[in-house]
Amino acid sequence: MRISLIQQEYKGNKKDTLNHTISMIEKSKGELVILQELHEYEYFCKSEDTKYFDYAESFEEDVKFWANVSKKKNIVLITSLFEKVMDGIYYNTAVVFDKGKIAGKYRKTHIPDDPGFYEKFYFTPGDEIEPIYTSIGKLGVLVCWDQWYPEAARVMALKGAEILIYPTAIGWLMCPEDRVDELCEKENTKKEKEKMLNAWISVQRGHAVANGVYVIAVNRVGKEKDESGVLGGIEFWGNSFIFGPQGEEIVRGGMKEDIIEAEINLKKAKGIRKIWPFFRDRRIKLYECIKNRYC
Amino acid sequence: MRISLIQQEYKGNKKDTLNHTISMIEKSKGELVILQELHEYEYFCKSEDTKYFDYAESFEEDVKFWANVSKKKNIVLITSLFEKVMDGIYYNTAVVFDKGKIAGKYRKTHIPDDPGFYEKFYFTPGDEIEPIYTSIGKLGVLVCWDQWYPEAARVMALKGAEILIYPTAIGWLMCPEDRVDELCEKENTKKEKEKMLNAWISVQRGHAVANGVYVIAVNRVGKEKDESGVLGGIEFWGNSFIFGPQGEEIVRGGMKEDIIEAEINLKKAKGIRKIWPFFRDRRIKLYECIKNRYC
Repeated sequence: MRISLIQQEYKGNKKDTLNHTISMIEKSKGELVILQELHEYEYFCKSEDTKYFDYAESFEEDVKFWANVSKKKNIVLITSLFEKVMDGIYYNTAVVFDKGKIAGKYRKTHIPDDPGFYEKFYFTPGDEIEPIYTSIGKLGVLVCWDQWYPEAARVMALKGAEILIYPTAIGWLMCPEDRVDELCEKENTKKEKEKMLNAWISVQRGHAVANGVYVIAVNRVGKEKDESGVLGGIEFWGNSFIFGPQGEEIVRGGMKEDIIEAEINLKKAKGIRKIWPFFRDRRIKLYECIKNRYC
Repeated sequence: MRISLIQQEYKGNKKDTLNHTISMIEKSKGELVILQELHEYEYFCKSEDTKYFDYAESFEEDVKFWANVSKKKNIVLITSLFEKVMDGIYYNTAVVFDKGKIAGKYRKTHIPDDPGFYEKFYFTPGDEIEPIYTSIGKLGVLVCWDQWYPEAARVMALKGAEILIYPTAIGWLMCPEDRVDELCEKENTKKEKEKMLNAWISVQRGHAVANGVYVIAVNRVGKEKDESGVLGGIEFWGNSFIFGPQGEEIVRGGMKEDIIEAEINLKKAKGIRKIWPFFRDRRIKLYECIKNRYC
């Protein structure tokens, strides 16, 4: 099965961004095409501003739009949209389309809040971790901050997910133009940047090995200023990847716009658990404390 | 705090092996010294033979012996011994000594069984995952096969472990001298070997990132034949390592005998969770299915 990861920049407004995304999808060759987190807009969680809630008003329209893209191209398409359910309840939602039909959606369950990533202001946490059934397999769609949680990966795998897929928006904090604050300076050394990028890769690669599944992340690229002027902004680090069920790197992108593509073989992944039988030996009685905050 | 990992070969019998281990410990400079899994003997689980149970008869003597080593050198020492509790109940047990006193023990909870690693024949699984309190910190001692389980790492971290430590015996299957069987041939390509080694590293590195803790593995080196002649034997891959709380490689050994040493800073690890606040956002209600075999 061929998979395409669309790694792109924000183009200054929704219309230009959508047009660009569509042109990339047209060029892609995958049966499964995956877009990055909140791909219709800038990563607006860089600051807390009520104006950005307007972006969620078009959720229903957006769903129709992407269903149509999926139908025309005859693909399974994973999108990441800002969903309004009612006044005061908004989700960070991945909607999965299967050749024009909605196969399912996943509402981000782990919501971050740290400088430049003020997502707790915008998003209600989703309350379900369930794989989504499609014509090409059971997809364990999770979103960004979820990727740091072995529990989320394991729950998906225990529920039968054959691939873990993380639309993502992650990068390094940029220093504000007029000053260098302590946090951005500390984070902007080359060594620190590499450490953060490698940590992000490592933890997800670990999920692949522990669960014997493919793991895919699709991240944005480009520098986006913090319009509020409080922080400098974020330089998104791209590096979208596919790791195999033994943690082997299958493909990894750079820091530029790119359609990152590879073939994967879900049957092969199923075979791995016969010779690496981690699931056989889980000591479930000893994991009780995992459902506690701390023990 | 300085840590020493004693990565060694089996020297043909217990006496020579112990003498060699002692000479390596004497040369080491760590306050915490860690020995590999079942370091007194060959890795005898390469085949199933009742004669090896005799090795566990000296457990009480062994404990006294290592307590004395720990006292003389004035160190925290992590050993890995074959423990007999009664006829029919034997454990793969890490005993931790703190300057001559027993600080605690951990009985391996996840027991493997695959070609060349027939541990289910020898070891009853331990029934507790608890950190061990020592004068230098709370140690999350786990053993070998445990390292593939994110749950074991998480339980230790939730219970306050500051470092995860895995005495280990892992390597590649060797082909028998008189023939090349399918499994050993498949596993003996350079690419396959690298994939397995990297998977082993990746999954543990993932535990470091997910839990914001140091992760240490101490593995044996050398080729050990399967005396039963069924399999070729195992080439242990060494590569003992320390990863930092952001998954950064601090030190890693090669495939030869070595005292692998580094300084670590437990205070630094504690700071990481302030800016990478994964523990804050765990969605404990959504992890219910982890305590099931499958969902």
